[in-house]
Amino acid sequence: MKAAAECYLCLMSQVLRTARVLGTDEVLSKKMAREGCAFLASTDFDRTPPEISAGLYQLLAELSGNFDPYYELKRENIRKALELYPELKSLTDSSADPLRTALEISLAGNVIDFGANSEDDWLQDRKFLKLGMMAIDDYTLLSDDLKRAENIVFLGDNAGETVFDRLLIEKIGKRVVYAVREKPIINDATLEEARLSGLAEVAEIVSSGCHAPGTVLEQCSPEFLRKLAEADLILSKGQGNFECLEQIRGPFYFLLKAKCEVVSRHLGVPKGSLILARSRNFSPRLLA
Amino acid sequence: MKAAAECYLCLMSQVLRTARVLGTDEVLSKKMAREGCAFLASTDFDRTPPEISAGLYQLLAELSGNFDPYYELKRENIRKALELYPELKSLTDSSADPLRTALEISLAGNVIDFGANSEDDWLQDRKFLKLGMMAIDDYTLLSDDLKRAENIVFLGDNAGETVFDRLLIEKIGKRVVYAVREKPIINDATLEEARLSGLAEVAEIVSSGCHAPGTVLEQCSPEFLRKLAEADLILSKGQGNFECLEQIRGPFYFLLKAKCEVVSRHLGVPKGSLILARSRNFSPRLLA
Repeated sequence: MKAAAECYLCLMSQVLRTARVLGTDEVLSKKMAREGCAFLASTDFDRTPPEISAGLYQLLAELSGNFDPYYELKRENIRKALELYPELKSLTDSSADPLRTALEISLAGNVIDFGANSEDDWLQDRKFLKLGMMAIDDYTLLSDDLKRAENIVFLGDNAGETVFDRLLIEKIGKRVVYAVREKPIINDATLEEARLSGLAEVAEIVSSGCHAPGTVLEQCSPEFLRKLAEADLILSKGQGNFECLEQIRGPFYFLLKAKCEVVSRHLGVPKGSLILARSRNFSPRLLA
Repeated sequence: MKAAAECYLCLMSQVLRTARVLGTDEVLSKKMAREGCAFLASTDFDRTPPEISAGLYQLLAELSGNFDPYYELKRENIRKALELYPELKSLTDSSADPLRTALEISLAGNVIDFGANSEDDWLQDRKFLKLGMMAIDDYTLLSDDLKRAENIVFLGDNAGETVFDRLLIEKIGKRVVYAVREKPIINDATLEEARLSGLAEVAEIVSSGCHAPGTVLEQCSPEFLRKLAEADLILSKGQGNFECLEQIRGPFYFLLKAKCEVVSRHLGVPKGSLILARSRNFSPRLLA
């Protein structure tokens, strides 16, 4: 999915949010905003949003000297999610359909995102668990495909959400490769955050090689591309991964909250919708 | 008041809003966003926001070929305000303090603004008349100064609001010069909109000479600067005029809704506050 006109505005809002998170002074904030504008004006917008934002966040890191502005927030979100874990595990275990419940919890975890319009108070009232109807719900297809699958790759998204993904992987009960970003980008999980979330107990954690907040195939390491090629089912979490992969033929299932107008419009759903969708370009193997 | 880091974001949101109002296609919208970014990256931010946005809107006009994108909306707002006028006039006439009521109505009219965060449904439930407390209320000072004043200049803001300003000028009951922008900019009133609002019946309508959405003294015509210099009371409506004039020594009273964080912070009030403030740099005559 290519970036749209609105992405200029969203990316600028991320520049200002990053400055706020870093607590930069007005001089540096203005410099970050100005150079962010210059970057967006000159970069190729005929690409996916994660490809563009990778360069933008690199610039902000260089300007601020901080290459991991969301470090504390990521840890805080993992800590909060780990506190919830036992309760959510009981909830899942006692469910009539544990896989379905675990999927819903993993999907609900996707509200944790500081890149898109964030809900800072995601824990408050546990409203993130009150899902309502999914706008696209290919659960039956996914459930069948999961039964047959032998090589499952799970593309992670944000730190915190990772804890809920662990619960889902437990219920899938098969060998899963869990992929994270190569380097810190926004609040996306890296190897370190995946380990802190307890994912090593249930999955093989690997880096995708990507420094973008999504899975950009051109950035993926040869080792990870091999794992993707071997996969007969790829569970892709979040908008960033969706934006990068929805055009690619492969065994993709997308789990995401459609957080912005651009993605919602692309999917033909209202903004804020929860999505469990088999790829429109589904193929039993990756054809990249 | 100089532009802040957040102004980059607000100005970019205005670019996208203008594209939406114009109904431009994706190609032109992206071009407007990209060139808007380039403009903001290269323009001097050590200026007031209206000075910056004047250049930005000029660029958008050139790119889109439309120099008055809010033409219809301005007319629509004037039409709606004129419909309310008789009722508001009765309300004012029957008030224990007609001047105060007229001031509150004129201030309430300042919610009509598509430049800052707009409230599209300003007419709905007539909620715009439910003012609540003003965060700064120098009514007593203003009331006294109005009694003494002989040359009053009223700096108008948005089309629609102009109708409510007429009501206020009727209650002031003195000779007033009503100043509007030289050319269409956002939804600000020009000579044409001031006339459509019936202001010619109660005031001498003049152009300030400004093409910015505020009163930039360097842009003002010599004739208008003379009127400002002769004024012993200047009523300044809206954020744009405030941003341009709050540092200038002169007989200014500012009536505005503080619509953004930057102005609210500057005034030390919560965002959304209603303000009737004698200038911190008050002087009986303009010293520019």
